[in-house]
Amino acid sequence: MARIVIDMDNVMADLTQHYLNYYEDEHGIRIDPATLNGIPEGNGFPVEGAVLKYLNTPGFFRTAPVMPGSQEVIKALMEDHEVFIVSAAMEFPLSLAEKLAWLNEHFPFISWKNIVFCGSKTIVDADYMIDDHDKNLRYFKGERLLFTAPHNTNLIDYKRVNNWNDVADVFSLKEVETV
Amino acid sequence: MARIVIDMDNVMADLTQHYLNYYEDEHGIRIDPATLNGIPEGNGFPVEGAVLKYLNTPGFFRTAPVMPGSQEVIKALMEDHEVFIVSAAMEFPLSLAEKLAWLNEHFPFISWKNIVFCGSKTIVDADYMIDDHDKNLRYFKGERLLFTAPHNTNLIDYKRVNNWNDVADVFSLKEVETV
Repeated sequence: MARIVIDMDNVMADLTQHYLNYYEDEHGIRIDPATLNGIPEGNGFPVEGAVLKYLNTPGFFRTAPVMPGSQEVIKALMEDHEVFIVSAAMEFPLSLAEKLAWLNEHFPFISWKNIVFCGSKTIVDADYMIDDHDKNLRYFKGERLLFTAPHNTNLIDYKRVNNWNDVADVFSLKEVETV
Repeated sequence: MARIVIDMDNVMADLTQHYLNYYEDEHGIRIDPATLNGIPEGNGFPVEGAVLKYLNTPGFFRTAPVMPGSQEVIKALMEDHEVFIVSAAMEFPLSLAEKLAWLNEHFPFISWKNIVFCGSKTIVDADYMIDDHDKNLRYFKGERLLFTAPHNTNLIDYKRVNNWNDVADVFSLKEVETV
C-alpha cells in the first residue's frame, strides 16, 4: 500500500475547460486550448487578467468540471492505497468552502480525513504525488507524476501522465473503465 | 533551522476558555476548568452536547481568544525556524474560512503558504509537532510536544509543554517577553 497525494486543480478539476468556458461567456470568443501550450497558467488569453478575475469570482471553483476518468480511477486507487487530496487552496480564501463542497459532491467516497488544503506543499509526506505544477513536485521526495496541463507542456523533468488512463496504467489498474 | 508544526485549537486558540464562556452565556454557570481535567474534550459539562453545538455554531472559531504568549513566541520561532500552522479544520467545514480570518487577524505575520487545514495529520512531515491531541502526535515521526489541555492531563507518553513560556524554553528563546 502506497500513500498517493493528488492535486485538485487541473488534475481532478478541469480548470482549463473552465477558463475557456468563462472566457467565452464573457468575451464571446472560444480560445483554442492548443494556443495556451507552454504559457504560464492564466496567461495566453487576449484579455489580460481574465483568469485571475475568474479565480477570485465566487462560484468558480464550486462549478468546475470534473476531469474525465478521475472519479473512477481514484475510487479504484483507494482500494489498495492511501489517497490524500492536497490542494493549494489557501491562496484563494473563497475557494476553501467551495472546494470542500465540490469534493463532497463529486467525490463523496473521499473522507474529510484525507483532504488537505494548504499553501506550500513542501510539508507533505507521501510515496507518490500527482500534480500539474513544477513548484509542487520539485521539493517532493517520493515518486513524482506530472499531470499534463497546457502550462506544463514544455516541462521535461518528470514522468508525465496525460490523463487518468495513464494514471491507471502507472498503478496497474488495467480494468478500470474511464470515460 | 527546524520545521515546526503548530496546532491551532487549544494551542494557539484557547478553546477551553471559549467553551467556558459560551457555556456561561447560555446556562449562567461558570464551570471550574479543573473539573474538566482528564475528561475527553467537549465532555464534562453538565449539559451534554453543549460543546459539540458550539463547535458547529457560526462565529465560534472566529471569536476564539488567543492563547497567551502564542503570538510573541511564534514570531520569535519564525526568525530561526520554518513554522507551519496545521489545523484539523476539515471536520468542521464552517471553521475553514473562520480559522483563516482568525489567523489573518491575530497572526498576520504568518504567510498563507505556511497554513495547512487537514483532516488526518499523518501526512505532515516536520521536525517538531506541538499539539494537544494524542491522535495527532502518535503517528508523527519527529519530536513531539504535548501542549497541556484539560483533556490530556493524564497523558504521560510525550514531553509536555504547559504554556508558551515552556515552548520558548524548549527552543531556547530565553528573551521572548510573553504575557
